[in-house]
Amino acid sequence: MARLILIAGSANPRLAEAVARYLGIQLAAVDIGRFPDGEFHITIQQSIRGDDVFVLQSVSPPVDLHLIELLFVADACRRAGAGRITAVLPYLGYARQDRRVSGREPISARLVADAIQLVGYQQIVTVDLHAPAVEGFFTVATEILSAVPLLAGAIQPLLPPDAVIIAPDLGAAKLADRYARRLGLPVAIVHKERLSGEMVTASRVTGDVRGRLPVIVDDMITTGATIEAAARTVLAAGAHPAIIIAVTHPLLVGSAAARLDGLPVRHLFVTDSVPLPPGLHSPVEVVSLAPLLAAAIKRLHGQRSLADLRGYR
Amino acid sequence: MARLILIAGSANPRLAEAVARYLGIQLAAVDIGRFPDGEFHITIQQSIRGDDVFVLQSVSPPVDLHLIELLFVADACRRAGAGRITAVLPYLGYARQDRRVSGREPISARLVADAIQLVGYQQIVTVDLHAPAVEGFFTVATEILSAVPLLAGAIQPLLPPDAVIIAPDLGAAKLADRYARRLGLPVAIVHKERLSGEMVTASRVTGDVRGRLPVIVDDMITTGATIEAAARTVLAAGAHPAIIIAVTHPLLVGSAAARLDGLPVRHLFVTDSVPLPPGLHSPVEVVSLAPLLAAAIKRLHGQRSLADLRGYR
Amino acid sequence: MARLILIAGSANPRLAEAVARYLGIQLAAVDIGRFPDGEFHITIQQSIRGDDVFVLQSVSPPVDLHLIELLFVADACRRAGAGRITAVLPYLGYARQDRRVSGREPISARLVADAIQLVGYQQIVTVDLHAPAVEGFFTVATEILSAVPLLAGAIQPLLPPDAVIIAPDLGAAKLADRYARRLGLPVAIVHKERLSGEMVTASRVTGDVRGRLPVIVDDMITTGATIEAAARTVLAAGAHPAIIIAVTHPLLVGSAAARLDGLPVRHLFVTDSVPLPPGLHSPVEVVSLAPLLAAAIKRLHGQRSLADLRGYR
Amino acid sequence: MARLILIAGSANPRLAEAVARYLGIQLAAVDIGRFPDGEFHITIQQSIRGDDVFVLQSVSPPVDLHLIELLFVADACRRAGAGRITAVLPYLGYARQDRRVSGREPISARLVADAIQLVGYQQIVTVDLHAPAVEGFFTVATEILSAVPLLAGAIQPLLPPDAVIIAPDLGAAKLADRYARRLGLPVAIVHKERLSGEMVTASRVTGDVRGRLPVIVDDMITTGATIEAAARTVLAAGAHPAIIIAVTHPLLVGSAAARLDGLPVRHLFVTDSVPLPPGLHSPVEVVSLAPLLAAAIKRLHGQRSLADLRGYR
Amino acid sequence: MARLILIAGSANPRLAEAVARYLGIQLAAVDIGRFPDGEFHITIQQSIRGDDVFVLQSVSPPVDLHLIELLFVADACRRAGAGRITAVLPYLGYARQDRRVSGREPISARLVADAIQLVGYQQIVTVDLHAPAVEGFFTVATEILSAVPLLAGAIQPLLPPDAVIIAPDLGAAKLADRYARRLGLPVAIVHKERLSGEMVTASRVTGDVRGRLPVIVDDMITTGATIEAAARTVLAAGAHPAIIIAVTHPLLVGSAAARLDGLPVRHLFVTDSVPLPPGLHSPVEVVSLAPLLAAAIKRLHGQRSLADLRGYR
Amino acid sequence: MARLILIAGSANPRLAEAVARYLGIQLAAVDIGRFPDGEFHITIQQSIRGDDVFVLQSVSPPVDLHLIELLFVADACRRAGAGRITAVLPYLGYARQDRRVSGREPISARLVADAIQLVGYQQIVTVDLHAPAVEGFFTVATEILSAVPLLAGAIQPLLPPDAVIIAPDLGAAKLADRYARRLGLPVAIVHKERLSGEMVTASRVTGDVRGRLPVIVDDMITTGATIEAAARTVLAAGAHPAIIIAVTHPLLVGSAAARLDGLPVRHLFVTDSVPLPPGLHSPVEVVSLAPLLAAAIKRLHGQRSLADLRGYR
Repeated sequence: MARLILIAGSANPRLAEAVARYLGIQLAAVDIGRFPDGEFHITIQQSIRGDDVFVLQSVSPPVDLHLIELLFVADACRRAGAGRITAVLPYLGYARQDRRVSGREPISARLVADAIQLVGYQQIVTVDLHAPAVEGFFTVATEILSAVPLLAGAIQPLLPPDAVIIAPDLGAAKLADRYARRLGLPVAIVHKERLSGEMVTASRVTGDVRGRLPVIVDDMITTGATIEAAARTVLAAGAHPAIIIAVTHPLLVGSAAARLDGLPVRHLFVTDSVPLPPGLHSPVEVVSLAPLLAAAIKRLHGQRSLADLRGYR
Repeated sequence: MARLILIAGSANPRLAEAVARYLGIQLAAVDIGRFPDGEFHITIQQSIRGDDVFVLQSVSPPVDLHLIELLFVADACRRAGAGRITAVLPYLGYARQDRRVSGREPISARLVADAIQLVGYQQIVTVDLHAPAVEGFFTVATEILSAVPLLAGAIQPLLPPDAVIIAPDLGAAKLADRYARRLGLPVAIVHKERLSGEMVTASRVTGDVRGRLPVIVDDMITTGATIEAAARTVLAAGAHPAIIIAVTHPLLVGSAAARLDGLPVRHLFVTDSVPLPPGLHSPVEVVSLAPLLAAAIKRLHGQRSLADLRGYR
Repeated sequence: MARLILIAGSANPRLAEAVARYLGIQLAAVDIGRFPDGEFHITIQQSIRGDDVFVLQSVSPPVDLHLIELLFVADACRRAGAGRITAVLPYLGYARQDRRVSGREPISARLVADAIQLVGYQQIVTVDLHAPAVEGFFTVATEILSAVPLLAGAIQPLLPPDAVIIAPDLGAAKLADRYARRLGLPVAIVHKERLSGEMVTASRVTGDVRGRLPVIVDDMITTGATIEAAARTVLAAGAHPAIIIAVTHPLLVGSAAARLDGLPVRHLFVTDSVPLPPGLHSPVEVVSLAPLLAAAIKRLHGQRSLADLRGYR
Repeated sequence: MARLILIAGSANPRLAEAVARYLGIQLAAVDIGRFPDGEFHITIQQSIRGDDVFVLQSVSPPVDLHLIELLFVADACRRAGAGRITAVLPYLGYARQDRRVSGREPISARLVADAIQLVGYQQIVTVDLHAPAVEGFFTVATEILSAVPLLAGAIQPLLPPDAVIIAPDLGAAKLADRYARRLGLPVAIVHKERLSGEMVTASRVTGDVRGRLPVIVDDMITTGATIEAAARTVLAAGAHPAIIIAVTHPLLVGSAAARLDGLPVRHLFVTDSVPLPPGLHSPVEVVSLAPLLAAAIKRLHGQRSLADLRGYR
Repeated sequence: MARLILIAGSANPRLAEAVARYLGIQLAAVDIGRFPDGEFHITIQQSIRGDDVFVLQSVSPPVDLHLIELLFVADACRRAGAGRITAVLPYLGYARQDRRVSGREPISARLVADAIQLVGYQQIVTVDLHAPAVEGFFTVATEILSAVPLLAGAIQPLLPPDAVIIAPDLGAAKLADRYARRLGLPVAIVHKERLSGEMVTASRVTGDVRGRLPVIVDDMITTGATIEAAARTVLAAGAHPAIIIAVTHPLLVGSAAARLDGLPVRHLFVTDSVPLPPGLHSPVEVVSLAPLLAAAIKRLHGQRSLADLRGYR
Repeated sequence: MARLILIAGSANPRLAEAVARYLGIQLAAVDIGRFPDGEFHITIQQSIRGDDVFVLQSVSPPVDLHLIELLFVADACRRAGAGRITAVLPYLGYARQDRRVSGREPISARLVADAIQLVGYQQIVTVDLHAPAVEGFFTVATEILSAVPLLAGAIQPLLPPDAVIIAPDLGAAKLADRYARRLGLPVAIVHKERLSGEMVTASRVTGDVRGRLPVIVDDMITTGATIEAAARTVLAAGAHPAIIIAVTHPLLVGSAAARLDGLPVRHLFVTDSVPLPPGLHSPVEVVSLAPLLAAAIKRLHGQRSLADLRGYR
């Protein structure tokens, strides 16, 4: 049987270490450096011939560098005779650009998927993909794991009886439903509503939030604007003035930290799919994806089902 | 300059005729028959060498037959030396199967897209695609036109001042917004809401519908169940008891006609992307896609922009 | 070693059951249904990750539906992480359309082959292909088995000493030769003959048939016209007035049953590559392909030679 | 409009010259040489950027060298920015290897087709292909011209009233039929017949040849064995003891010349698709393909139909 | 005839402006921005349907960002219906990684070439490629222009009669030869020489440099180490103590500026393929590639030969 | 575990036999013949289903025939169900044509690489490739072994203490360095030098050769012109008048033998990657590649590292 090899890209060295510990193996010896002009220089320092290679690398900011690195590592593996190469992508950037909006844009998510397959990845593993249709941009077997069970498990002990799951926009409605089923809570949805044919819109919440503690959930948080608006809407609608937030991918760019600091955040639950930026004052609790990713890798290596890791139930 | 050729598949012969009239050309002489054992037998009966060929064919029920026919026609065109082959798909079936739900399914929309490209279609034109991400399943230039301007234009003269656009589920919210902007109306959204973590859900409407005439809009109607539920919800919420429905693709299968007959439908606006089934008692008005498709074909042939046919504004 | 998995398409459920029994396994749990609008909805209900999957499905009438189903099943298997996917096609429709006749047609057999490979089938198994060159339309390993040994074995006990194998047209000459060698009989060929440069042709038989019992053999029977004409020709040439017919694929469409009923058919031998239509009065004997297909699957799974299943000797 | 460029491979320099004269153009300046170790060294000595390039090269003996040269020329054209590259193959070797006979062979014709497409040929033109299904080995537009009208036209003035077209084996039956229609003659077919299940076969002729002058036709003649056997069979059956032979591709290898010399050949009609070997004593008349190929090139360049050059009527 | 469109990537805005002026056109309106999380967001703001699009973008540091941008722009063009897309790459990074050195590395140049083709570039134009074999990593038509005529023309007026061209290592020998022929000068080569089997090497110069003014030429300068070592070697060998340096691509990273400042550089000639870093004290003269690139684009657009722009003579 | 199968092409039957002996296996039963018209006819006469197949074939003169044979063998293997197919190419012709020189040529090495991959080779093994960048023309794992350790080992016992390694041109400098490190010798390089801008060049040697025995090394010898010129240059520079030559691939075409006979060659060391031509009077010693190739095959079959066979250290 082929050996299990885990290669850590430079995006998540600590998560990779943790996954390796769960798997009871050492990370493969790989040298990922740069030439003085900034070109990547990658060398795999041990034989991986015929091995079952997993490359763990989030396509997280700086997203283009992490993507290129992901591509070069596969090329090195393929040319070194690797048996099977799997991309384990805790966070997959560009997945939101899954359609053209204005008509003369790239569909970046498709291009990224094509490039990942071009270089030889034969399987993809990722977590809470923003646009599920991106799975169809790949033709190889693609497993979308979910951090919802992990995050919901972390939230549960802290929940008052009268909480309510909040989807901060229509796109988060299905994710909110998964949390609701796991936590036994109702759901409310915040959404922009057109009041007339003009550009007059209002943020509204549907569902009963009065006096309830809002648990705002989303797949990711970038500038924090969506979550801030949702929080202000539910608070204005009479929700309990303390918020729990749970997001899988805490990108937290721009003024995200400041925005969160301006809200009565009681807990912010995130995973380690991307590293947390410094300077955040909210009480963050990081739930590691390591056991989830390790389980997925172990089963893919042993050719066993991943169905229960997709978090559907 | 290459000649413009229009080939009619067997799914929409009358629509194809109408498009040809708008273009001021004859439909190409093509014989699409079947052998006694049911295999397609297709012959193009005129030279199309070097020509700019457009094949008009909805992938509508019987969806598999129309799809296979679409594929064979392209093969015949390519082997006959066609210059460029464009698929004009008023309705593209399987577009809803754009992701895996349970984990061991096909992503049918991707397979269909790959097959369409495999046989040589170099451009795709379609209308009000159910899942916009399906555009990214193609790598060739794909234009998604919208019937909203046509349908909104037909509705406008019949509108009372106090109408409201209704999105019958979350997925229709963006389409509803397009209608609202064109017609100068507010939007309300019907959606299922989880009342607790259990399987208890309720259909709710967000936005003010009391005393207003509901205009329910969607990209397609199949069994009619979604639209029926939405209608009942808004009526229960006090909407004016007369409904206008506008959908691009009137598949109307199963008990759809009976469902509509049970509602106080004042007008049902649809396009001719698929033929209407017999036995429908609602007052249907069919708005033809012919001018829209003819304009798109004319511009693609003349290499001019289609931006304003995408219905974004 | 990878597990052997057998998936039954909807074209031959009973044959698939029989093959599974020969292999000593259960058919895989697969749900092949349709949505109300007729779109296929396929779900594989057990893990097949890393398994050696065989999909048994004739591309028989309704040929386009069976083909599309075959394609979707492979997509589901590939995305579910199947190890190797083999198409077992007892009957492969469209195989007769292997060339262009009039110049602006598809080469449907090539398109079908390309589609089958596109979705991920890595091996093909089929039986008595009408046009052997279709094998070259595939680039993956393709095994063409033969039902001749099975059918000849069934005929043998019923043969009078003075029988003669009849090829009903030139295309069947090689198949007739295989029967002849197995049964120790001479061959006669029926063919159309041009009597002059005009359109005057006559059906002639070459070889001695007087007083002999004719055994007409072909790879398939569709409308029955070819076999009826051959029968009438050999009877007119003095053959014994009782006919044995052996064909691998009994499509029997249109007036085939009526045509056969009008002939003195003593035995009609066919396989179960396609289901027999109702309403046939001739004395039919169905020889199952199950042992042949089971042997082929067992050897492909065990990586052993199939040479003796190709029926060459 | 793109310029028409004709490049002559080294297989048919004189035919290429003749085609160029018909087209009223000069052959392109191309240097096809070899390094001392025998590797091809090819240089195109004029700009062909954006041009419509036709490469005329039979894949005739030495077949592998002519094939490799054909491939390299396309690579040079593509890299030099040619607009469209068409392979004009008066004779396409390896076309007989279109299926596997014994089970562990290449399908050489498919491999040759794939290689020709790999290097960038976007259209194929060839003449009287031995196995018509080879057309389906290509996915690009492929035109199979026929030399039958040219050869039949040359034969016609020399025909006695009582001639008969002879197909020397079953595979030549369709070609024979084309000659027959053009010349207003009946057809007879020579074929091997199995007299019993053993290996006892006899050569037979079906159709009336007694006292008639036999016109043996085939797509090609290699060793001459098939035609010699057919000639002896029809002579033994009472045919007029003087033979006319018409074949498109006169490969004439091995003892072909000696075999023909031993027959009462009155005329041998061939084309210049391959050069005639020396030492042939039969009265040969070479009908040039130049006007046919020139017409095909002119029409492909001008994007007009080639239907009447396929010789179907 | 298709319109000529020039799109400027963000790597060389000023060079692109200059090329547009030479061509007498405006740069296309393209918005290349980034989302807050750093993902590229690209929109083409004018119709380019059917147009002949040239994208000018050096793959220069930050090399991965410029590469990704190059890829996304092509995807946007292809999906917007561009007629033909050409990549004009004044500097192509990663071209030095054209082989594996240690055995388990990527061949980055091949991966970059494959990605560039994957997204739809149908022609490549670049300048003084470090490793000429990288041309073969592309299958599309690739034109390698040379800045040698431009740079040699700029040097010529400043040359004393006794100058000598210096190749700073073996890899630069062919480039040095081109300068020598243009300037009518002899060549000397500096190279490392192994003095024994041990790791003892020495830098040597072959050719007569005593009392001559050295003109050190190379395709690029990165850290300046190679050129510094060459300069010291020729000075130690008695060359005139004033140096002229000519390089096409002035990357000048790390301590390159300091290294050059430590040498008696009289003139440093470079092109604007990459922007010059600040803080350089040597007397730099920038020769613009704009006329060369404009000429190449004009000819490719007009389908005329580029032979004399390759700088071979 | 898959069986190891070794197939011998017709280029190196004796080397293949030797490799098989080292591996302790029999060569596979394969019939590589030709039809009377020269077309290859290949049959594999044993089951190779699922096996790990290595095809040993130099692409040596007659280079086109050996290449075509290599391609057909893979097609036969793939269609026969081989598990993995590896091309072992002791000498890979066309590898020198790795770039365009004059601008309108093929890049033959790339075309050859593409063809080899097209037919299904999944791994490549070759020896001392002339242009290392050719590795990047393949996308599959490619191992370039080196004969330097073998040849250096054979030379060592015969070396006088004052020998010097000679690179006969700049391209051989790196190879010379490898010999030098292994044998503990200094290196000198012969190269053409431009004396002025005119076409006046001279052959020069850099490094100390006076009184030393020159060991001229190169990857191949074809016409012998380069080595002859180098020999004359070092002799004129005072080298000891007896030469040792070591080349991996002894093609020795044209007047190579005569050229060598005119030099004071003491030993000529070559490998058996290509057969030696007759009529050579120099004292040749053939060092077999068999142990090197056998080791590589054994490790690839057992999925172990080949790093130390690449001869880097």
